[in-house]
Amino acid sequence: MSVLDKSNKEKLILEVAQKRFGQYGVEKISMQEIADDLKLSKASLYYYFPDKESLYKAVVEKEQHEFITSITERILSIKEPDKLLREYVNTRLSYFRTLLNLSRLRLEAYSDLKPVFRETMIQFKAKEKEIIVKIFKDGVSKGIFFINDPVMTASLFLDLLKGLRISVVNDKKTLFIDDEEYSKLLYNTVAFTDIFIKGMSIK
Amino acid sequence: MSVLDKSNKEKLILEVAQKRFGQYGVEKISMQEIADDLKLSKASLYYYFPDKESLYKAVVEKEQHEFITSITERILSIKEPDKLLREYVNTRLSYFRTLLNLSRLRLEAYSDLKPVFRETMIQFKAKEKEIIVKIFKDGVSKGIFFINDPVMTASLFLDLLKGLRISVVNDKKTLFIDDEEYSKLLYNTVAFTDIFIKGMSIK
Repeated sequence: MSVLDKSNKEKLILEVAQKRFGQYGVEKISMQEIADDLKLSKASLYYYFPDKESLYKAVVEKEQHEFITSITERILSIKEPDKLLREYVNTRLSYFRTLLNLSRLRLEAYSDLKPVFRETMIQFKAKEKEIIVKIFKDGVSKGIFFINDPVMTASLFLDLLKGLRISVVNDKKTLFIDDEEYSKLLYNTVAFTDIFIKGMSIK
Repeated sequence: MSVLDKSNKEKLILEVAQKRFGQYGVEKISMQEIADDLKLSKASLYYYFPDKESLYKAVVEKEQHEFITSITERILSIKEPDKLLREYVNTRLSYFRTLLNLSRLRLEAYSDLKPVFRETMIQFKAKEKEIIVKIFKDGVSKGIFFINDPVMTASLFLDLLKGLRISVVNDKKTLFIDDEEYSKLLYNTVAFTDIFIKGMSIK
């Protein structure tokens, strides 16, 4: 099998797994079901991904990559820092929901999986911070924002966003949010971003 | 024993337990140690509090009552809504630390205890919201704040504060924060409150 075939097959597996995990959550889907969807033998599937954990990790990294790519494109196309920040917040929240849907994990299962994602999560957090610092600094240089310490303020902004997300899943046994909870979270996130932008803006 | 004696004795037990739990956390202190501190027999202590859980609950409720009383006094003495909000945030954070120190619980132990506090927590949350709504409405009527929906904005503000607190203890095995973590949390909380106030303020 050529390198190209291998990479195409991997891509296909990831697409099917992404769809299946997104529908039912990683715990409810077996490697057999994914192999069946692909009309592959289980042995062939295991050739690409030695266990479900590694497949799940690859799907999460794919989603992360798609999110970062999509945000980076928007950064190039949107010129107003405040508009860009709102756009970031919306896209980030929809990415959060995608990740939750992929997993639908019981909290214990999530704790077990955490170490697997440690490195990925640290890298993602760093990228996210870089993006927000860039938006804030851009706002300062355009005379729109007044921010003493853009790096600290970016961390604070991201912590606050994360806090809103955590507070929705904090008391749950399963990491999943329904439409109503998502609407409420979106409403709160938009209201928060609005106040935060006004609080940083030069009038 | 007169009703007055009983209530005095209870008060004394609560003070000793408050001090002891605050020093070492509820898990590390036995009912025997508290009885010894009070020069009471264990049987007498159990007469007032049938188990450590009920004693711990009474101590938490005492702290809560002290916090609400102290904040209510400040509301009467401070006239500027923005100053009052900052004062609230500081006092609330120091109360959070007191509660953490009282418990120093392993996360599992905390999950087990949660149902015991459910009612207390709901009541406290309602009181807290009432206070912030009052401060926001006062700010609107004094022409300092522009807030469309003070009730929603109060919930949002409290969720955000909670999010900052949770993010510090989120990845911990024991619910405890050291001096450095507290300083960082205080710094973030003050910076957040500042931006939030500016974002709501009429310039």
